[in-house]
Amino acid sequence: MAEVTMDKIVSLCKRRGFIFQSSEIYGGLNGAYDYGPMGVQLKNNIRDFWWKEMTQIHDGIVGLDASILMHPRVWEASGHVSNFTDPMVDCKQCKSRFRADQIDLNGACPTCGTKGSFTEPRNFNLMFATHIGANADAGSTIYLRPETAQGIYVDFKNVVQSSRVKIPFGIAQIGKSFRNEITTKNFIFRSCEFEQMEMQWFCKPGTDEQWFPYWREQRMAFYQKMGIKSENLRWHQHGPDELAFYAKDAYDIQFLFPMGWQELEGVHSRTDYDLTQHQTFSGKEMNYLDPETNERFIPYVVETSAGLTRNVLMALSDAYDEQELEGGDVRTVLHFHPRLAPVTVAVLPLVKKDGIGEFANELEHTLREDFATFFDQSGAIGRRYRRMDEIGTPYCVTVDYDTLKDNTVTLRFRDSMEQKRVAISDLVATINQATKDYKRI
Amino acid sequence: MAEVTMDKIVSLCKRRGFIFQSSEIYGGLNGAYDYGPMGVQLKNNIRDFWWKEMTQIHDGIVGLDASILMHPRVWEASGHVSNFTDPMVDCKQCKSRFRADQIDLNGACPTCGTKGSFTEPRNFNLMFATHIGANADAGSTIYLRPETAQGIYVDFKNVVQSSRVKIPFGIAQIGKSFRNEITTKNFIFRSCEFEQMEMQWFCKPGTDEQWFPYWREQRMAFYQKMGIKSENLRWHQHGPDELAFYAKDAYDIQFLFPMGWQELEGVHSRTDYDLTQHQTFSGKEMNYLDPETNERFIPYVVETSAGLTRNVLMALSDAYDEQELEGGDVRTVLHFHPRLAPVTVAVLPLVKKDGIGEFANELEHTLREDFATFFDQSGAIGRRYRRMDEIGTPYCVTVDYDTLKDNTVTLRFRDSMEQKRVAISDLVATINQATKDYKRI
Repeated sequence: MAEVTMDKIVSLCKRRGFIFQSSEIYGGLNGAYDYGPMGVQLKNNIRDFWWKEMTQIHDGIVGLDASILMHPRVWEASGHVSNFTDPMVDCKQCKSRFRADQIDLNGACPTCGTKGSFTEPRNFNLMFATHIGANADAGSTIYLRPETAQGIYVDFKNVVQSSRVKIPFGIAQIGKSFRNEITTKNFIFRSCEFEQMEMQWFCKPGTDEQWFPYWREQRMAFYQKMGIKSENLRWHQHGPDELAFYAKDAYDIQFLFPMGWQELEGVHSRTDYDLTQHQTFSGKEMNYLDPETNERFIPYVVETSAGLTRNVLMALSDAYDEQELEGGDVRTVLHFHPRLAPVTVAVLPLVKKDGIGEFANELEHTLREDFATFFDQSGAIGRRYRRMDEIGTPYCVTVDYDTLKDNTVTLRFRDSMEQKRVAISDLVATINQATKDYKRI
Repeated sequence: MAEVTMDKIVSLCKRRGFIFQSSEIYGGLNGAYDYGPMGVQLKNNIRDFWWKEMTQIHDGIVGLDASILMHPRVWEASGHVSNFTDPMVDCKQCKSRFRADQIDLNGACPTCGTKGSFTEPRNFNLMFATHIGANADAGSTIYLRPETAQGIYVDFKNVVQSSRVKIPFGIAQIGKSFRNEITTKNFIFRSCEFEQMEMQWFCKPGTDEQWFPYWREQRMAFYQKMGIKSENLRWHQHGPDELAFYAKDAYDIQFLFPMGWQELEGVHSRTDYDLTQHQTFSGKEMNYLDPETNERFIPYVVETSAGLTRNVLMALSDAYDEQELEGGDVRTVLHFHPRLAPVTVAVLPLVKKDGIGEFANELEHTLREDFATFFDQSGAIGRRYRRMDEIGTPYCVTVDYDTLKDNTVTLRFRDSMEQKRVAISDLVATINQATKDYKRI
């Protein structure tokens, strides 16, 4: 198996319509990406998989979609206004700006080479600021949220009062966040605009110590259910230097990206810190009345916080493969779990003529209610299989002369390249069963 | 049937967890809303319905998810930097600011009552501006996109090159847009942060005249498929004073909101204006090479542009009903199409004891793979039905003593309040069939 490099992923993403740089015709916008026809389907499928697992299948989790623009006091309470900063230095000679922790402050300027030319480090806030209302004065400054979690905390009471939830319960949210990262890198791994999938689990103080290992286990199981290779996933526990001062414990799920092991998701035990901060800053009670014991308390929180866009990069990296075939050809193939694949079923007439093209086209239409389909009748069948492999389509259906006689088709499986003859009347059920039984090779 | 007022909708939305004001504990942020547990499901269901109809069922439409932050030249090309403005005046006396077209310029200031105190109108741009990178200088000014359409135009060539699409074809996108509206009003109808569902249909110049009526018909049919009452929908053709100078024709689908007829979706014939503008401003060719005729041309565009958040308000307004029941009780009920309802199936044990509660709870778990479910065992069964009516749950399943004997349950339909006895083994199929056959009463 050939090495999976970031260059190969980036190139495939552009070539096959997964991911483009934002505003490319204008020279691009650094740290912002567009998800093309294949990319948006992949991202939506991961999003829907997470959402269903969290809010529909799991007990006691409700959804939320809070706004990106929030009251600025939210970010004072959360600590982002004071602390969400990177230290920056300027070169006095050429005016270039750098993150202080990424250069040698006693060394030469990477741009102009001058030595000892750096200013003292100054803190630079990573939140994007804008103004709301007609006046651009300080009073109207608001921020694009740098994380989705605070929207959940701020709405905690509204959810409790409107939704008949009882502790322990969770609030799940998927949405965009924005960080003015000076050093964006590794493609969509660290970008200025990204999407998060977060769940905050509210529980009685003390019980967080049972829920923390529970959620660690759940979240790792999620990636296995998604078909991600076990050897590409590992735990990293935050050391004393990484742990936030209010956190009891924190683990990251790391994935072996092309550039190495990096954080994919955090499972953090945050105590009552966030709700207490919002109680202090808003003057509103953020406690919970236990209907059984009549006790009032501020719940403790166990958070599971994953990057959706980072999950897309994970899915691509984990699935990418180059395989040598019999005869010496090499195929590029994405071994996506069938539930994640942008196209589920491709319908390919062996030839266009003799009514086979029309038959295949009609068949493709009947499959649309159940699956994301693709119809392709141009080129040799082998080349069409290669194109479907490259976007990770798990099932190809080939219509041929026999189909017209006996209403059967050839069903071809992406990973094994096995083919079997299936009656059209059994096709939907056969595909659904294969998806249920799917095992990552 | 009682009158549907905005106050009733707003109150239900807060009480039952559909929609909250953003940052409410901090006094709220004007023009921004959070979608609570019920609201996010409703919004997601509308989103998924549109996305499936457009990208999965319809021929020749691919998806896209472009970034919110784009290169600032995009908004010069689109005309937003120069023209996306409202005229504003200040009162010289009290410094209050107003939209010039919403007050009498010769009259008294609505705030302080001073006459003849207004400044000359000045244009105020509705785009939210922010800065990217470490320098807050003019060169780093970017905008939050005020519409999703431009992301589609800017990526037109990338999509053509990567996706084997042939004209005519469409690109569909759902995403957030932002407008610094000074006068937000009518709840989520006009807000600073909102979501759009847009499809741009690229076709050969001339053929736009066939596609324009085609897309008008398709889009109206969509709302009927969604179960919206025909009498609440109508067409409004743009008059010469409303039509953009480059547009050939434009129709809006209007909905009868509580505050009157207002735009829900626009179907606009935009010619080659947008692609030509981007060709001029970017210096990149935005044309299309017809593989059959070898002709090169800049495609014409027919756009269908709907508000997702506005669709949520439509769904709520259209579904809202207060019905007097036998015995004089009044029920509030939301007649959502079952595909839109936040909860599809509620499972309600008639009593908790004698194993009925446990049985019902297990049944609810087995239904989760197929449906968004809800379990409720507290209070009289009539009250539990009322609560489900109020969030628009189309199906209630009641478990009783007979269930333990014969594995049947009572299936209760929201609109008709009819009940029928169904074998548990037939439950999923019966519900799916009822959803397929659903007719808005």
